[in-house]
Amino acid sequence: MDLFVRDIYPLPPGAPFEGYFVVEHVEIRKHRTGEPFLRLILSDKTGTFTALWWKPPKDADLTIFKKGDVVFVSGHVEYFQGNLQPKLNVIRHAEREEFDPEKFITKTRFPIDEQFLKLLEFVESVQNPPLRTLLESFFYDDNFVEKFNKAPAGKTIHHASIGGLLEHTLGVAEICETIAKRFKSIDRDLLLTAALLHDIGKVEEYAVDIAITRTDKGILLGHLYIGCEMIATKIREIPNFPEELKTKLIHCILSHHGEYEHGSPKKPKTLEAVALAYADALDSRVKGFEEHIERELGDKKGWTRRHFAFEVPIFFDGEFKYEEEE
Amino acid sequence: MDLFVRDIYPLPPGAPFEGYFVVEHVEIRKHRTGEPFLRLILSDKTGTFTALWWKPPKDADLTIFKKGDVVFVSGHVEYFQGNLQPKLNVIRHAEREEFDPEKFITKTRFPIDEQFLKLLEFVESVQNPPLRTLLESFFYDDNFVEKFNKAPAGKTIHHASIGGLLEHTLGVAEICETIAKRFKSIDRDLLLTAALLHDIGKVEEYAVDIAITRTDKGILLGHLYIGCEMIATKIREIPNFPEELKTKLIHCILSHHGEYEHGSPKKPKTLEAVALAYADALDSRVKGFEEHIERELGDKKGWTRRHFAFEVPIFFDGEFKYEEEE
Amino acid sequence: MDLFVRDIYPLPPGAPFEGYFVVEHVEIRKHRTGEPFLRLILSDKTGTFTALWWKPPKDADLTIFKKGDVVFVSGHVEYFQGNLQPKLNVIRHAEREEFDPEKFITKTRFPIDEQFLKLLEFVESVQNPPLRTLLESFFYDDNFVEKFNKAPAGKTIHHASIGGLLEHTLGVAEICETIAKRFKSIDRDLLLTAALLHDIGKVEEYAVDIAITRTDKGILLGHLYIGCEMIATKIREIPNFPEELKTKLIHCILSHHGEYEHGSPKKPKTLEAVALAYADALDSRVKGFEEHIERELGDKKGWTRRHFAFEVPIFFDGEFKYEEEE
Amino acid sequence: MDLFVRDIYPLPPGAPFEGYFVVEHVEIRKHRTGEPFLRLILSDKTGTFTALWWKPPKDADLTIFKKGDVVFVSGHVEYFQGNLQPKLNVIRHAEREEFDPEKFITKTRFPIDEQFLKLLEFVESVQNPPLRTLLESFFYDDNFVEKFNKAPAGKTIHHASIGGLLEHTLGVAEICETIAKRFKSIDRDLLLTAALLHDIGKVEEYAVDIAITRTDKGILLGHLYIGCEMIATKIREIPNFPEELKTKLIHCILSHHGEYEHGSPKKPKTLEAVALAYADALDSRVKGFEEHIERELGDKKGWTRRHFAFEVPIFFDGEFKYEEEE
Amino acid sequence: MDLFVRDIYPLPPGAPFEGYFVVEHVEIRKHRTGEPFLRLILSDKTGTFTALWWKPPKDADLTIFKKGDVVFVSGHVEYFQGNLQPKLNVIRHAEREEFDPEKFITKTRFPIDEQFLKLLEFVESVQNPPLRTLLESFFYDDNFVEKFNKAPAGKTIHHASIGGLLEHTLGVAEICETIAKRFKSIDRDLLLTAALLHDIGKVEEYAVDIAITRTDKGILLGHLYIGCEMIATKIREIPNFPEELKTKLIHCILSHHGEYEHGSPKKPKTLEAVALAYADALDSRVKGFEEHIERELGDKKGWTRRHFAFEVPIFFDGEFKYEEEE
Amino acid sequence: MDLFVRDIYPLPPGAPFEGYFVVEHVEIRKHRTGEPFLRLILSDKTGTFTALWWKPPKDADLTIFKKGDVVFVSGHVEYFQGNLQPKLNVIRHAEREEFDPEKFITKTRFPIDEQFLKLLEFVESVQNPPLRTLLESFFYDDNFVEKFNKAPAGKTIHHASIGGLLEHTLGVAEICETIAKRFKSIDRDLLLTAALLHDIGKVEEYAVDIAITRTDKGILLGHLYIGCEMIATKIREIPNFPEELKTKLIHCILSHHGEYEHGSPKKPKTLEAVALAYADALDSRVKGFEEHIERELGDKKGWTRRHFAFEVPIFFDGEFKYEEEE
Repeated sequence: MDLFVRDIYPLPPGAPFEGYFVVEHVEIRKHRTGEPFLRLILSDKTGTFTALWWKPPKDADLTIFKKGDVVFVSGHVEYFQGNLQPKLNVIRHAEREEFDPEKFITKTRFPIDEQFLKLLEFVESVQNPPLRTLLESFFYDDNFVEKFNKAPAGKTIHHASIGGLLEHTLGVAEICETIAKRFKSIDRDLLLTAALLHDIGKVEEYAVDIAITRTDKGILLGHLYIGCEMIATKIREIPNFPEELKTKLIHCILSHHGEYEHGSPKKPKTLEAVALAYADALDSRVKGFEEHIERELGDKKGWTRRHFAFEVPIFFDGEFKYEEEE
Repeated sequence: MDLFVRDIYPLPPGAPFEGYFVVEHVEIRKHRTGEPFLRLILSDKTGTFTALWWKPPKDADLTIFKKGDVVFVSGHVEYFQGNLQPKLNVIRHAEREEFDPEKFITKTRFPIDEQFLKLLEFVESVQNPPLRTLLESFFYDDNFVEKFNKAPAGKTIHHASIGGLLEHTLGVAEICETIAKRFKSIDRDLLLTAALLHDIGKVEEYAVDIAITRTDKGILLGHLYIGCEMIATKIREIPNFPEELKTKLIHCILSHHGEYEHGSPKKPKTLEAVALAYADALDSRVKGFEEHIERELGDKKGWTRRHFAFEVPIFFDGEFKYEEEE
Repeated sequence: MDLFVRDIYPLPPGAPFEGYFVVEHVEIRKHRTGEPFLRLILSDKTGTFTALWWKPPKDADLTIFKKGDVVFVSGHVEYFQGNLQPKLNVIRHAEREEFDPEKFITKTRFPIDEQFLKLLEFVESVQNPPLRTLLESFFYDDNFVEKFNKAPAGKTIHHASIGGLLEHTLGVAEICETIAKRFKSIDRDLLLTAALLHDIGKVEEYAVDIAITRTDKGILLGHLYIGCEMIATKIREIPNFPEELKTKLIHCILSHHGEYEHGSPKKPKTLEAVALAYADALDSRVKGFEEHIERELGDKKGWTRRHFAFEVPIFFDGEFKYEEEE
Repeated sequence: MDLFVRDIYPLPPGAPFEGYFVVEHVEIRKHRTGEPFLRLILSDKTGTFTALWWKPPKDADLTIFKKGDVVFVSGHVEYFQGNLQPKLNVIRHAEREEFDPEKFITKTRFPIDEQFLKLLEFVESVQNPPLRTLLESFFYDDNFVEKFNKAPAGKTIHHASIGGLLEHTLGVAEICETIAKRFKSIDRDLLLTAALLHDIGKVEEYAVDIAITRTDKGILLGHLYIGCEMIATKIREIPNFPEELKTKLIHCILSHHGEYEHGSPKKPKTLEAVALAYADALDSRVKGFEEHIERELGDKKGWTRRHFAFEVPIFFDGEFKYEEEE
Repeated sequence: MDLFVRDIYPLPPGAPFEGYFVVEHVEIRKHRTGEPFLRLILSDKTGTFTALWWKPPKDADLTIFKKGDVVFVSGHVEYFQGNLQPKLNVIRHAEREEFDPEKFITKTRFPIDEQFLKLLEFVESVQNPPLRTLLESFFYDDNFVEKFNKAPAGKTIHHASIGGLLEHTLGVAEICETIAKRFKSIDRDLLLTAALLHDIGKVEEYAVDIAITRTDKGILLGHLYIGCEMIATKIREIPNFPEELKTKLIHCILSHHGEYEHGSPKKPKTLEAVALAYADALDSRVKGFEEHIERELGDKKGWTRRHFAFEVPIFFDGEFKYEEEE
Repeated sequence: MDLFVRDIYPLPPGAPFEGYFVVEHVEIRKHRTGEPFLRLILSDKTGTFTALWWKPPKDADLTIFKKGDVVFVSGHVEYFQGNLQPKLNVIRHAEREEFDPEKFITKTRFPIDEQFLKLLEFVESVQNPPLRTLLESFFYDDNFVEKFNKAPAGKTIHHASIGGLLEHTLGVAEICETIAKRFKSIDRDLLLTAALLHDIGKVEEYAVDIAITRTDKGILLGHLYIGCEMIATKIREIPNFPEELKTKLIHCILSHHGEYEHGSPKKPKTLEAVALAYADALDSRVKGFEEHIERELGDKKGWTRRHFAFEVPIFFDGEFKYEEEE
């Protein structure tokens, strides 16, 4: 039976276990006799432990295991200096069909299908024809939607989960709707279109496999540029899409990080662009705080450690309630 | 009849006019004969013109008119080098009862009474007893409410109008409500209380008379500190107000500018504080953009000049619609 | 005969003159009689003067002249308070064919054809087939080349002249060639391709007419993004252009301003990108200093005023020699 | 006998020892048999060592020891891999009366009583009646004085010791006195009052127990705000305290960190405020350098490591002499 | 009789006047007849006025008057549009012996001789022989002392007066003495030497003539570097000056602006350097505030305009008392 | 035979080895018996390992080995927990003549002699007599040249190798030559002289022994100042060296880091200074990237870790080719 790391810890010494884990670190070491053995750090999303492949067969190729591989292992529980450090009997690469990737990465707790229906309601509320066509060219395209619904909105800072991009996109759209009601001079259709598309570049910036990683392309170009190129390509296929509208929409996407130092090559210079930038900041910052609290405190109260990006420790003495839809 | 500046301009040379104006600038000059005369720049909220008190009575004290005074003048339209520059027959200080201060300062276009009722609904939605008591100690106090409903939320940057503070407070509360619905871990009552009180220090930071000015106290202490002291004083009169709750509330107020360089002595360190700071930024920035567009472009489209605080020019090619309540 | 402003100044009062000028400022004023007249500020690249259309025909529409128009005027030299301020007999809009636009904007002093041949030598030195094809798709396209050879590389900061983009592109390519010789690990073909294409977005960022202006699109999107979209579009038409090569090339363009605060959404992260960014900085900064010296000092020596972008005054006690090709 | 950590190190293996220590870290581990044992890191102000409670009684509750507790332990000296790592026979919580808190925290080397007398001389030199009354309301209040004289002026950066607040307050007052003698336009009584009260918020920002820690309130509100609220509360009880004087005094306190990024919501805007801010910087920076040298170099000369806040290493080749009063 | 500008203003139209003034601005203009005349702006330290040389002799060379020249003029008081604008009968260059330079530049109000004696007391208090020798090589050198005692410590920011350098040097030395008494680990002789020499580069950075100007050398190299080179040169002539002591002294001078952005190539890294940097900041900032108040408010109370370097307006409601020595 | 660390690793357990190594860390530990032994970390430029002097003679003084010492050791290969950790038979201080310092520090791969000849060609190309004399006073001085040719241009950031200063100086000179050809207004001789001398202060800033270290003087004064003082001293010995030329040259050196925050007390304010600053940045940044790639990736491709100073990870998928001269 495939155990989680957190389920192995309570087992008594000597108990057998098996499971699929990601290799976090691997090292070939030598016994004093000069015979090699393998020292591994293995993990899933619930924790980490060290394991030793103490007596590999003479002809085993120890160099085939690499950081990031998923392996199947079996062994017996054992402690060294008080730490779990079993010796393994078996270790082999796992085939992709054998294990559930969700063992390794968290997933949004919102139901994805329901959320996507809500997003489609926003799409269908857009009246401006070229904008509506553009939105449909993305959100009625099954290939795109499949990638979009799985994508995270971040690796560590906020919405770092499968479905995180969908969750964040909805959060931003809700705030933009609130703003558009109060400020009538805003072009509501443009703002909502920008909100729904603002982070689509993340489907190519991040790769979600056993972990969320940033692709080479993602690091070199970033989701702002990638998203704009995706939009520009689609627009080229829509007859008579107004040039000025394209410029204003792409401006919203390019500038939505608000400041140069956050990677926007332009600062927001239209009502819609400034509304989008601040709505994005609001949703992602609050979510980032919440994830940090959850990660750091679990059920406890008090102070987290300093957040690596927001540069403050966070105080929380409430109850951690995950958002549920009424 | 009291004319606006914009109504004097179309009058033909020689036409009589009269009205109340603010003295923007005043200078005593001399005729070549050595006789003194007065050169004034006069304004109301619609514009500015130069006037000369060309032949004051021998015994007139020319030194009594000062920048900021409201004066009553009468004269005939006259041009010099193509500019309106009438010579005045009469100039005297105006009594406060004679003129309507709204000739000199703009007012929120939202109906203040209706807006205040909405605000009271927010007050009454707060369930937490000490927070509710605290809110009532402000918003059920007629003296305070009178000042609050007249106060601006700024001098130039955003909501620079009579009633601007009320308008902005509601805008922030609406966004906070949206956020509190999505993020259930937030203490909704604390967040709404903080939203409703976050800028109350502005009733002492700004003086609204003929123009919006900042008081000495406002410049030296700022509305963050002033508001906190106001809240701390009220809390001292509420029996058993929990010390921790006071700390968390005051932290929200102190940190709501988000960054040190915006004048917050603390960065937000709780979910409620971070939500408030970003909601405040969102409402005030969008409003600030809108006011800048209105001031700069009027009915035209295109680019404004660079905004002195946001440091960008703003592009607007939509229709300027003022928010109306459906 | 079409006179330059600098040629009108030395004429004696009463001398007739005529010429084509740009309207910098226009105002309708009224005589004391109530009759309207026009006050204009007119300029060409050699200077500025004020003119009055003192007695327009009764049925003339004074509202048709706007900032930026080119007008033909004739009149006689006249001074007011020591300033040149002629009254005009004739003023009318000029047709585009009547005047030479170079009366209004400077032009690179390098011969454009010769420079472009040098640029083609760089193109032909590129061995990598897809990069070579890409370069040819731009520089063998007559429509593009016509725009490229006229474009400036800036409005005020550096290479603010017709042909300035070509001049700057060559300057950067020369430095990159020097660097590629010393650092053999650099992919020389990639670096040169990036150098030749790094600023092509400027053909859409700037409009050169009577003056260099930035287009709406230029202000909202910037030449970094525009250039990348142009390249991505061309690449889509080149069969089998390697995806990784595209990513590395676009990374060079996106990051060539070097720092976030200079409008790059990504910092340089490859050898080629860092070399391009610093080569671009070197050529544009030295040129910007030189243009500032020329503009400020003419033939004199000593200190310029503080440069508005580089934030220093510049000291020059040499001889100003324009680059000549041996 | 209660030993300091530094006194245990020289003991031979096998020697018995006992003492009171703070728990820095605690972990429950398991023997290979599955039996639990406790691994602790213990400290006092002279050092740190690891200890094992190797064989706790079967019925012992190992979860009762927590970071920050003071415990009494006894055992015998033992080394593991060259590090002191004794196994303990006894471990129990210590009662507050049993140990001397000064074992755990340093104390100003100035005699507190003498220093406080000097401070009272400054108090008594203030002639302005309301300011004098205000100062007396603090410094003639035994409860306040007891807390004030024990408080540190920092946790790590400067004056991080019992009595550090008193020492720093005097240092700042001395410099202010020097300044007030040279600059006669300064309101000397206001400046001295501000100097004496500028950091009183630290009596609530820091808790001094076994270590100097920052309280929740301290982290959320900071000593600038806390001090101002303390002063405002006292002033409310002083009849006819001039409002303007209160504003100027509180401005000095609020702005004494000088810059926004150091946590002042206002920059100094009066002569007194600017003098206080720079006097505070001078005393605390020099003291911070000195403490860093003492901590890092002891009796040695040369370079310290980079100071975590001042961001430089410090060079010292003098003799470390603690301030003595002649 | 040589009149100050402030003494001409109250004269009746037609009254004769004469005096020495600096040319701030000069322009050759033409009468309508084509005859040239000269328009000048003239000033001394009390004010500014416009004058016209209306009818220069036919053969006069109008190009010989330049900005910065001191001229002798005579004429009769005349007003144009209410402004003083006399026509001159006589204008000629003034010889250096004719006028008192103090008509054009302010001077420290401290008696220079007395101040210099105080400075010598500091010199003589230094016990360390090589440092004492070094100090004497400057302050016993009459040529140097003459320049030193006249030099300003700034052009606009602080101590911008003849004798300002001496005044500031003493102010810093007094604070350093206070600090050295409290912090015994400081090398008092090194600190005082550094204090006395820290700004000597200003004798070459500024030129005091009719106005305080910065020399080319001053702008290109700065007083930090110039002062260090002066010290290094003197030290080369002192036998056996310890190399380490030289390094520590020059480090104090190089780093005394405290931060890179204030032009120090090194941050302070010794106790003496950090004490000097903060003492310098304290004295110069308070003095700069005071000068700004004096310049802006004169005898009035309230707010100055924003200080161009400190970036705040300053509030002053005290009495402006210049420092007097008891 | 003196082995490199990388040559010991492949030896079988039990094999004898010997060699010279630098002591990186040393600790005296105790056996459980109380007997002391020595634990050392030893290194050369190819790697690092731990060694134990397990049984030192009773009378051995274990305190004589210090960080930075070069020692001769011999022992047999042994592993502990899979790590190389031999016990030593012999350890003693090595005499300077015994070992080759290049075992410990890398050296430019360019042939130094050839490079220096190229540098002399640049020297001889300078026509301006005083500049030529100045250059010769350095580069024809054997003592100076010996130090110059060995000096590194950095400790870690770029050109951190013996001969690195020479290599970097040439790289900068080549770029300056390219720039001087394009921009004829530049004083080519001044620019080349500044290029050749810009970093000479590094011969005193760094000490190259067993490792590159920064001297006390280097940390306290920096190579900008040190170099300028060296130049000023030489110039004092050259009769009639023009004062203005000296000022302009020293300005180039002082300002060549370009920005205050990079340690330049002045920003570049001449054409030559700005060209030098950007040429220096270009050469050092590209070299720094290349060294980081080499250090991090060796023969591999992909991403380096984040560079500690440039703050980006670097992507490299080319071939690492060291520059060779054709």
